[in-house]
Amino acid sequence: MTFKAKLLHTAQKNQSLVCIGLDPDPRLMPALDVFEFNRAIIDATLDLVCAYKPNLAFYEAQGIAGLTALQKTVEHIAGRVPVIGDAKRGDIGHTAGAYARALYEVFGFDAATVNPYMGFDAVQPFLGYKDRAVFVLCRTSNPGAADYQDLDCSPAGAGHARRLYRVVAEKAREWNQGDNVGLVVGATHPGEILEVRQICPRMTLLVPGIGAQGGSLEAAVRYGTDASGGGAIFASSRQILYASKGSDFDRAAREAADGMRREINSILSRRSAG
Amino acid sequence: MTFKAKLLHTAQKNQSLVCIGLDPDPRLMPALDVFEFNRAIIDATLDLVCAYKPNLAFYEAQGIAGLTALQKTVEHIAGRVPVIGDAKRGDIGHTAGAYARALYEVFGFDAATVNPYMGFDAVQPFLGYKDRAVFVLCRTSNPGAADYQDLDCSPAGAGHARRLYRVVAEKAREWNQGDNVGLVVGATHPGEILEVRQICPRMTLLVPGIGAQGGSLEAAVRYGTDASGGGAIFASSRQILYASKGSDFDRAAREAADGMRREINSILSRRSAG
Repeated sequence: MTFKAKLLHTAQKNQSLVCIGLDPDPRLMPALDVFEFNRAIIDATLDLVCAYKPNLAFYEAQGIAGLTALQKTVEHIAGRVPVIGDAKRGDIGHTAGAYARALYEVFGFDAATVNPYMGFDAVQPFLGYKDRAVFVLCRTSNPGAADYQDLDCSPAGAGHARRLYRVVAEKAREWNQGDNVGLVVGATHPGEILEVRQICPRMTLLVPGIGAQGGSLEAAVRYGTDASGGGAIFASSRQILYASKGSDFDRAAREAADGMRREINSILSRRSAG
Repeated sequence: MTFKAKLLHTAQKNQSLVCIGLDPDPRLMPALDVFEFNRAIIDATLDLVCAYKPNLAFYEAQGIAGLTALQKTVEHIAGRVPVIGDAKRGDIGHTAGAYARALYEVFGFDAATVNPYMGFDAVQPFLGYKDRAVFVLCRTSNPGAADYQDLDCSPAGAGHARRLYRVVAEKAREWNQGDNVGLVVGATHPGEILEVRQICPRMTLLVPGIGAQGGSLEAAVRYGTDASGGGAIFASSRQILYASKGSDFDRAAREAADGMRREINSILSRRSAG
């Protein structure tokens, strides 16, 4: 089954476009080990999400123990919900192949995020995995994103701006021959979500930055979903994982995830009614 | 001691600007485990190099065992030669902090490579480690590099091209308040090395792509070194690691590394004589 089919199946079954970013931060989480924390979050939210998205940085920061916990986390999910390895990797072709093996074969992710700066051969090895997906960073949710992604790369005399993230979206569309490419567009930039959605009407968009980063859910959902009201994954991490610092953290996470799920669904039904 | 001081010390002691890319590929290396292979290469070349540069992709592709071998490799080098973690990471500020902790504190690298696409806050947490260095990808050695890095980002009507890698070099210069920023410029693009060296006359350049990737050593050394004949690190991996596929692989690696070291030194003495 392709990633898109798996995502659609889960999103429909759970009536959800919510993705939980599994980013265990020892300074914020209750005194549990990383795997126990993730397991509690997963068990409390499995019927409310369309995907999970562990960011590898938080596991690497805890060394071998953290990476072992990541493996156990993917094994615990056991294919019940698609898992996106948020790794933002990118390297020359030969080396990118090793990253693709690590993310898809060793860790067993259904999808991975990659960084486009090194161009086509940094992404190509990921495209060869027809049953997985690769999400290319396009317009990210952080303040520094503007440093390069907003640079105007229009040909001289074009008369209109063509920002770098737009070039990235257009190239991703070319690279998407296997229908397994998606784009990362941060919720903090609704105008850019709309623009990218217009360039790639049928591509899956991964939209981080909901919640803690301050992105508006309303605009992200209106602009990010495709004509069918799907095709987008809205990721939130801290707002759900750390909804409570007490022993009820899993119940609080469930409530926060369900709240976000309902809010997205309500925006979607207003949109289709309007 | 700062990374720059440590690098200078080692380069002078070993009379070498050679960096060996420790990229263990099971399809190319003799039937040894990763750590045993690395140990043999290190023991055979420790007095011939200015740095080692393990690329994390090759370790991650072998899962927990590979990452454990990477840790043991850094421990085996034990500070005798600076080690650059070639990870090409990049993420939003909060998460980039976790990557910096992973690379500098958990793995204990003296320096790390980062990807600039996400802008300043993706690099900032690395800058806070005053005794380490961060190498920002600028113009990479792979064919796809041109896809984005060569895009012209000059302001409208500027009348001259200002390619993206040039903007990256200029920003890296701004970010270099702590004298701990370097740039990655591939040996396959000598003209770009010269251009970047002119923008950043005193910055350390990490120049991969020597050997297997076909970059010219002569041009890379002439353009990449600073006015003192140093300030540059020339990295080669496959040409050294896999110089022989037999049981004499370590001796063959020593010969290949020494050959490259002598060739660089001879280019440098011709340059200072000329």
